[in-house]
Amino acid sequence: MKDFKFYAPTEVVFGEKSEEQVAALVKRYGGTKVLVHFGGQSAVRSGLLDKICGLLREGGVESVSLGGVVPNPRLSKVQEGIDLCRRERVDFILAIGGGSVIDSSKAIAYGVPYEGNVWDFYLGKAQAETCLPVASVLTIPAAGSEMSEASVITNEDGMVKLGYSNNISRPKFAIMNPRRTFTLPPYQTAAGVTDIMMHTMERYFNPDCDMTLTDEIAETLMRTVKECVFAVLKNPEDYRNRAQIMWAGSLAHNDITGDRTNGDWATHQIEHELSGLFDVTHGAGLAAIWPSWARYVMGENVSRFVRFAVNVMGVPNDFTDPEGTALKGIEAMERFYHAIGMPINIHELIGREVTDEEIKEMTRKCSRDYTITQGKFKVLKPEDIEAIYRMAR
Amino acid sequence: MKDFKFYAPTEVVFGEKSEEQVAALVKRYGGTKVLVHFGGQSAVRSGLLDKICGLLREGGVESVSLGGVVPNPRLSKVQEGIDLCRRERVDFILAIGGGSVIDSSKAIAYGVPYEGNVWDFYLGKAQAETCLPVASVLTIPAAGSEMSEASVITNEDGMVKLGYSNNISRPKFAIMNPRRTFTLPPYQTAAGVTDIMMHTMERYFNPDCDMTLTDEIAETLMRTVKECVFAVLKNPEDYRNRAQIMWAGSLAHNDITGDRTNGDWATHQIEHELSGLFDVTHGAGLAAIWPSWARYVMGENVSRFVRFAVNVMGVPNDFTDPEGTALKGIEAMERFYHAIGMPINIHELIGREVTDEEIKEMTRKCSRDYTITQGKFKVLKPEDIEAIYRMAR
Repeated sequence: MKDFKFYAPTEVVFGEKSEEQVAALVKRYGGTKVLVHFGGQSAVRSGLLDKICGLLREGGVESVSLGGVVPNPRLSKVQEGIDLCRRERVDFILAIGGGSVIDSSKAIAYGVPYEGNVWDFYLGKAQAETCLPVASVLTIPAAGSEMSEASVITNEDGMVKLGYSNNISRPKFAIMNPRRTFTLPPYQTAAGVTDIMMHTMERYFNPDCDMTLTDEIAETLMRTVKECVFAVLKNPEDYRNRAQIMWAGSLAHNDITGDRTNGDWATHQIEHELSGLFDVTHGAGLAAIWPSWARYVMGENVSRFVRFAVNVMGVPNDFTDPEGTALKGIEAMERFYHAIGMPINIHELIGREVTDEEIKEMTRKCSRDYTITQGKFKVLKPEDIEAIYRMAR
Repeated sequence: MKDFKFYAPTEVVFGEKSEEQVAALVKRYGGTKVLVHFGGQSAVRSGLLDKICGLLREGGVESVSLGGVVPNPRLSKVQEGIDLCRRERVDFILAIGGGSVIDSSKAIAYGVPYEGNVWDFYLGKAQAETCLPVASVLTIPAAGSEMSEASVITNEDGMVKLGYSNNISRPKFAIMNPRRTFTLPPYQTAAGVTDIMMHTMERYFNPDCDMTLTDEIAETLMRTVKECVFAVLKNPEDYRNRAQIMWAGSLAHNDITGDRTNGDWATHQIEHELSGLFDVTHGAGLAAIWPSWARYVMGENVSRFVRFAVNVMGVPNDFTDPEGTALKGIEAMERFYHAIGMPINIHELIGREVTDEEIKEMTRKCSRDYTITQGKFKVLKPEDIEAIYRMAR
């Protein structure tokens, strides 16, 4: 059995009254001057931004705010945040939003005390030894960044999308009020659920598959959100099911469903080039890739795909035909993606045929100029990555 | 839906090579002079104590050691630890053992910087504002103290057993090597599994029952350890199943299966008087009480007991007879307790009839001289507590 680590220090305050505690939480973790970091206008329109800044002020905590973070967040915006934090002597970063804002906040947190270019960390040229404390008021359940050590940033110079993971950036606290997710549009809700499930699937399809308890927690989580999403698509103000999706989003990526470092992550890496090149929603990109990845790698461990089909997708087990059962699980996932409005191939994702040149470019980037492999369930060489893009076209 | 908090900052290092990291971990959390705290001779005989002290020395960390912690750990031993830590200027406490040693270590950690009597905290007369950092090398999976904020101590003056919970004492790290549990005798193994399941059952039988995801994680955990225990009773050196029990022990009490503060905890409170009075193993005491508690409170929410019967105990659901199905779940749990060598009533636990006087004394202590109630699933007045002791006799 593989050794593992579990480290999820983020203090979660979950529920309708959770926001009231923001000033006390910032102070508990040493913040005196806060960058309130957010994305588009929804945080403004909903009044959340004003509410949080007001609560901080009442609690005696100074703040400056910076908006404009976009999905697939950009390095230039990170640099703007770093400059602002240095100028304003910010000592705490509070993200209001989802994965893009929290990932950007982590990048800013690494960058403020670092003398070099923050992109060094994402390129693997340097390891961050210190960073500002980060926390979030979560409004989009999807990326799981609110409890994770991961951050993914896109460098506009070449549209290169890279991730950097470091335990020092695990957020200090996460305020989660399910009510704040009521206004999330259906497409974002569905893409979020796809991302949540995929964070657990990346861990579930690992080369060892030896921890029953962890596997069953993973299966439970996937089954639960798969049901909850239909309830919230039907009634966006279904508090209980919004809450379950929100909490599942954190658990899916805080390592309770498996140590990240033992997981596969090929689907994520292959998708990163899609959202890097076409600026699509990450969750939708994952849905477009996964079925092809699954068919391509299934032969490595058919019984694992049978287990997934039966325990997660509810496919009856045909004991005489494991491959058939496994394939039915993948087909059931495709039907699920369609039922929630997600694509199952690149054509459906971007609305046109992807070109050979684009496939070549994504393969080149995903294998860092043909020098690296992806995945662990099956180790994917550059030609495998290209084959999966072609299957998914 | 109830608001909740989740805070599990303990860094878990799990696996066969985990012990090697002890000195680095102590230093990461600021320890320079460590109290190595342990129980009986097994830590000495197995060589674990020497190994840990050697690794600390090699890593440049000073240590003093103190053994002799007993099950249902005593306040006098805690006081001895406090005195030793002050004398030796200890700044970090490392427990080697299970719940008794870790609980004692937390008590010492509270006591060292406190001017008053550490028992004040357990009596609810004071709140600890600071404590020394605590961590553990776990050898007995049961109490879950390695990730929890709880500590239970017995004051020999009147054999009063009281718990105190405070987030500041959550251990900094937990080293878990399943191999260290191979020598755990069958009775301790079974009592440990009973305790693990009960930490989750106390959360599962709550008055709200509104979080599917959390409920299903709880059910998964209970089903898993229920199977694993038979494997390790048959083959004590079954690494994979020992590992699952060990990890389940932490998850059962780190709030992933439900916020502690929303749970019931009556069975624990009723049991504390049993182990306080008769010095029995806590897990065995829980098994002796739970079936009677369950029958007594079942009417509060029969559907919850039906769900438990079906999803945890594998009882077929008789949809025409919910009470019958619920009762079959309790009976199945009694058969499970017997199958692993646990008692299902007080007579089996202490080997003789409990007297009326003893029942009166336990009721009096459990209701703090008839002034308080226990439980939330059903609020138990002193007469209810007495009735449960009588049912369980």
